Amino acid sequence: MKVKAGVLERANVFGIKEVDIPDPGPDEILVKTKAVGICGSDVHYYVEGRIGPYIVNEPLILGHETSGEVAKVGKNVTHLKEGDRVALEPGVPCGCTDFVKQGLYNLCPSIKFFATPPIHGTFAEYFVHDANFAFKLPDNVSFEEGAMCEPLSVGIHAARQGGIGLGSRVLITGAGPIGLVNTLTARAAGAGIVIVVETHKNRSTMAKECGATHIIESFDKTQILDQVMQITGGAGVDVVIECSGAGSAAQVAVETLKPGGTLVFVGLFSALEVPMDLNAITQKELTYKGVFRYRNTYPTAIDLISSGSINVKPLITKRFGWQNVKDAMDCAHKEASTQIKVMTEWN
Amino acid sequence: MKVKAGVLERANVFGIKEVDIPDPGPDEILVKTKAVGICGSDVHYYVEGRIGPYIVNEPLILGHETSGEVAKVGKNVTHLKEGDRVALEPGVPCGCTDFVKQGLYNLCPSIKFFATPPIHGTFAEYFVHDANFAFKLPDNVSFEEGAMCEPLSVGIHAARQGGIGLGSRVLITGAGPIGLVNTLTARAAGAGIVIVVETHKNRSTMAKECGATHIIESFDKTQILDQVMQITGGAGVDVVIECSGAGSAAQVAVETLKPGGTLVFVGLFSALEVPMDLNAITQKELTYKGVFRYRNTYPTAIDLISSGSINVKPLITKRFGWQNVKDAMDCAHKEASTQIKVMTEWN
Amino acid sequence: MKVKAGVLERANVFGIKEVDIPDPGPDEILVKTKAVGICGSDVHYYVEGRIGPYIVNEPLILGHETSGEVAKVGKNVTHLKEGDRVALEPGVPCGCTDFVKQGLYNLCPSIKFFATPPIHGTFAEYFVHDANFAFKLPDNVSFEEGAMCEPLSVGIHAARQGGIGLGSRVLITGAGPIGLVNTLTARAAGAGIVIVVETHKNRSTMAKECGATHIIESFDKTQILDQVMQITGGAGVDVVIECSGAGSAAQVAVETLKPGGTLVFVGLFSALEVPMDLNAITQKELTYKGVFRYRNTYPTAIDLISSGSINVKPLITKRFGWQNVKDAMDCAHKEASTQIKVMTEWN
Amino acid sequence: MKVKAGVLERANVFGIKEVDIPDPGPDEILVKTKAVGICGSDVHYYVEGRIGPYIVNEPLILGHETSGEVAKVGKNVTHLKEGDRVALEPGVPCGCTDFVKQGLYNLCPSIKFFATPPIHGTFAEYFVHDANFAFKLPDNVSFEEGAMCEPLSVGIHAARQGGIGLGSRVLITGAGPIGLVNTLTARAAGAGIVIVVETHKNRSTMAKECGATHIIESFDKTQILDQVMQITGGAGVDVVIECSGAGSAAQVAVETLKPGGTLVFVGLFSALEVPMDLNAITQKELTYKGVFRYRNTYPTAIDLISSGSINVKPLITKRFGWQNVKDAMDCAHKEASTQIKVMTEWN
Repeated sequence: MKVKAGVLERANVFGIKEVDIPDPGPDEILVKTKAVGICGSDVHYYVEGRIGPYIVNEPLILGHETSGEVAKVGKNVTHLKEGDRVALEPGVPCGCTDFVKQGLYNLCPSIKFFATPPIHGTFAEYFVHDANFAFKLPDNVSFEEGAMCEPLSVGIHAARQGGIGLGSRVLITGAGPIGLVNTLTARAAGAGIVIVVETHKNRSTMAKECGATHIIESFDKTQILDQVMQITGGAGVDVVIECSGAGSAAQVAVETLKPGGTLVFVGLFSALEVPMDLNAITQKELTYKGVFRYRNTYPTAIDLISSGSINVKPLITKRFGWQNVKDAMDCAHKEASTQIKVMTEWN
Repeated sequence: MKVKAGVLERANVFGIKEVDIPDPGPDEILVKTKAVGICGSDVHYYVEGRIGPYIVNEPLILGHETSGEVAKVGKNVTHLKEGDRVALEPGVPCGCTDFVKQGLYNLCPSIKFFATPPIHGTFAEYFVHDANFAFKLPDNVSFEEGAMCEPLSVGIHAARQGGIGLGSRVLITGAGPIGLVNTLTARAAGAGIVIVVETHKNRSTMAKECGATHIIESFDKTQILDQVMQITGGAGVDVVIECSGAGSAAQVAVETLKPGGTLVFVGLFSALEVPMDLNAITQKELTYKGVFRYRNTYPTAIDLISSGSINVKPLITKRFGWQNVKDAMDCAHKEASTQIKVMTEWN
Repeated sequence: MKVKAGVLERANVFGIKEVDIPDPGPDEILVKTKAVGICGSDVHYYVEGRIGPYIVNEPLILGHETSGEVAKVGKNVTHLKEGDRVALEPGVPCGCTDFVKQGLYNLCPSIKFFATPPIHGTFAEYFVHDANFAFKLPDNVSFEEGAMCEPLSVGIHAARQGGIGLGSRVLITGAGPIGLVNTLTARAAGAGIVIVVETHKNRSTMAKECGATHIIESFDKTQILDQVMQITGGAGVDVVIECSGAGSAAQVAVETLKPGGTLVFVGLFSALEVPMDLNAITQKELTYKGVFRYRNTYPTAIDLISSGSINVKPLITKRFGWQNVKDAMDCAHKEASTQIKVMTEWN
Repeated sequence: MKVKAGVLERANVFGIKEVDIPDPGPDEILVKTKAVGICGSDVHYYVEGRIGPYIVNEPLILGHETSGEVAKVGKNVTHLKEGDRVALEPGVPCGCTDFVKQGLYNLCPSIKFFATPPIHGTFAEYFVHDANFAFKLPDNVSFEEGAMCEPLSVGIHAARQGGIGLGSRVLITGAGPIGLVNTLTARAAGAGIVIVVETHKNRSTMAKECGATHIIESFDKTQILDQVMQITGGAGVDVVIECSGAGSAAQVAVETLKPGGTLVFVGLFSALEVPMDLNAITQKELTYKGVFRYRNTYPTAIDLISSGSINVKPLITKRFGWQNVKDAMDCAHKEASTQIKVMTEWN
């Protein structure tokens, strides 16, 4: 089947091309694409042609924050039918490996993830996907909201890794798209105090709309520590969600935590190594936890949106038709500090 | 110090009396009472003169859902000062026993709990309490809300025991005061679907106001099971919070749970024994958890109310001045199915 | 491929027959059977023709406690090769379903389990199995020990469900094969005190060999409670592993637990309903947990045996060649109270 | 009461002096000292006069690994009586603070810990201690073993923080006293593979005696990584217990862990900051956990020794009478690489 798709040839060479889509296998579905959000990683591949060890050596369809309509189902698929509206979880493990058996399928080295070379993404009129990783959307959840389940999943997984619950006091460093979904999920999970560190005014405003109770408008370590201690009456926070990728943020995070607290790493650091005070981990019995994508989050994301517990709509700040997917990518790249989520509409 | 107090002489003999209050010890505070809610247990002592093994053999001051103003602090107390507005956690363990060391202080047999014979409660103009169990209220939390931290604590502890988190699907059996606080905390903890079973119209209406997404207006086992399965697409719920104390509710709860689900027992059963299908626990690998009062909930309750995550005000359906505390008790007793929380105001 | 197998035609009609074995699929292996233990469920099918809802309507190869040698590997299989010695986990889920994704694959309704109608077992010279559920045995683990990984898995899973760890005090009700593997795993997990309730002398002797620190030679409720309290200085135990399937054992288990303790249900109850004091769950904040087979236990079982932490050999009390598999079944049935594990040898 | 004690006047000035011991308070006991082990921290105070922020400004009785006999009980003490043999937990929190209520009493800033300025230790003929932190020894546990409960507690707490259980694969970096107790507890908790990194022959021999299954006789990063991967078939370990305080060990620990693994920090680092690859935490979703002393370990330690699950006796490599406590300290200092535990005998 020939379809139009947004293809990255190599760094900085991106545009609409016609590509071939296979028939769905017995456990797969064919999906008619409806909405695809642009992620920082799409932009990174676009601009650099690689992310760390993942290199674009052959033309690659980008896009992985996706919703669509089921166009065809494989013969073993029973939980979905043609016409169903679905959100698509982008990462599919190869089978029942040891990590999968332990419920850690996102950590399985065999995982195939949309728009991660050499696996194609979803900037395409149609695509094929494993039916077990397609989740039906209720009527009151739009296709755009379905696409937003992907970034929201990162927030859900981080909140779980951090053990955020009723009354948790949380510090979030950075209010880019990931900091903002973490603000949403921290509040939805019952955090009473959610302090967000962000210096861009439009982002800190958005953080407040997402439920932040306090904003620290500085990345200066002393400023952050002083304000966190003032807000918490000197006790410190229970959980830090590090979304900035700045070494200094990781360093001060340790100091803002109360003894027994948890530091969740979500952002990627450009520095290969960051000097860390390891004795603080023992002296305060801290816990550090990593977040690599997410697992078991899509049904949760859909329930949270459908029940009104979380509103992701304000995060979508710009929309483009699929024919203008290159403009959408350029916008996401050049307006990174003012746009939150750029959405592409397919049909 | 002589103060007026609401004293139960013996079953059905309750009224205002003058009593003596001691000076606070070095780790204690003297509290000027402001608001005290009436709990089902107060009414139970009033009407029956006992609850199970706890028997009112001597005059007992009732009341344990309490807020007040610090009137005097013991010499070792540093975190509170005269004039501070506080909520009072009613149960105080005797020292650093094994249960306390493990963070299970509510399970310590040595615990002394307001209005549980022979420990006096807080229906009194003033009372003395351990300063470590008094929690400062922020300016935006009223004395009434401070008193509501007590029933809310039961909901917080039950949500924690049940592992309710982002996207949990929850069934709550019964929408009396405890079912309602559980509705509030389930939603605040991120539950997407919260189904409440309740046949009284005023209570089910209140459950909706507290965030219930679905109401089942029948305690018939088949009805409950059918509707839960319909709402959850045949999957069942993750967690049941049993608040009714009805054996049939416990029985059907087991059937409404998905494999791996959790059944939290909060309500007390009048039946000494309930016939249970124990094989269901193995076949579905269920978890059952009990809730005995609560632990480590007061700071959480205050943060949730102060941050607006939870609104307990609608639960207060009637108010009485302290001089009319007997009328308040009679109201709580006779209007049990229409009143949610009867509050007494002291000053 | 034609092979000889131990086939149950219908209740009480069991014997060697020639059956057809398919070629392994791309993700499967062909296994030359080496050792197969006889489980109570094999005997139950043999005698009754059914276990609850599972009915033997067509001839069924029995046997599910299995080790063997890899005879052929499917084309996708990379972690095993011909000649490898393996233990076989009997239950295989159908794919990446919701339960699998959460690491609860044993709870997936799609699971296919050896010798559970209509899925054939391993009383056969050869059989085919999913390669992801075959685990390589180190040289120092014999085929018999490989077959014992199956019952040992139940003990591993129960110890995990019960949270047994360093210093746990454990009561095990019943010292049949499952009670005995639980004795082994409780001790291996660090339990200091392990009390076993058993009235048959040969079983209680075996329990001591498996590491039981105390034996209670009575199933009388008062006797059990008195002795547990005496052994624990009145404190009660942290965990009960219920392996007897007797309602009275479940009832007294509740009383022997300390507040905050955990009751793990492993044994199946013949009674459809058992009268239980549900208020004990709240008053003592107990946890009940079910055990349905096991998950993620085979690598653990192999490590425990290989490292000498656990010795399963004494549990094998009788051996039969495969030609005498009917005699083996009769022995397991008729000598149930004196034999622990009857093993069949295949080659 | 005048008693002889081992007192540190200031760095390098240590000897027997007569000191005054108060009467026990109502919740306290007077203890006749029996055995006190020498810890690295005692030696550190002796040689340096300080450990980090803790400075010896006034004469300080050293010693905190202690057992003894109850000589007198305060009037509120009911669980102990004169003549009871006890092990003493050295850290006592000041009351029911927030950390205590959460079961994290070791993290409470108010904690008073033997031989940590300005709190005196137990190198004395008699001393007074909180009765809730004295634990009765069974007849089959000697006074020396009672004193060993202290270092063993660090191993118990680390095993719990690391989630070591049945079948865990563990790497321990360093086989000084703390590495060795961790080897004992890792094995007792069910770890199948326990790899110990140690270059001193007498220590690696002791590690084997404590249950290590593999020894790596090099602290070279490449060597460690290669050997761990070879032993684990390329999978890596589940848990690393870092006991060396060497930055390079922390760095390589990260690489030896499998995705989802846990790194427990026990050793103190002399380097104020260690350069760490923070992206590894996210890429592999690692967990880091700190160990600050221990909590709720004494009853466990006693049960493990009493039941024979753990044998601490081989760790005691030299004994001195109390009159020679200075010689004992000098021995512990000068023979640090050959002695494991130097024990002083009091009576």
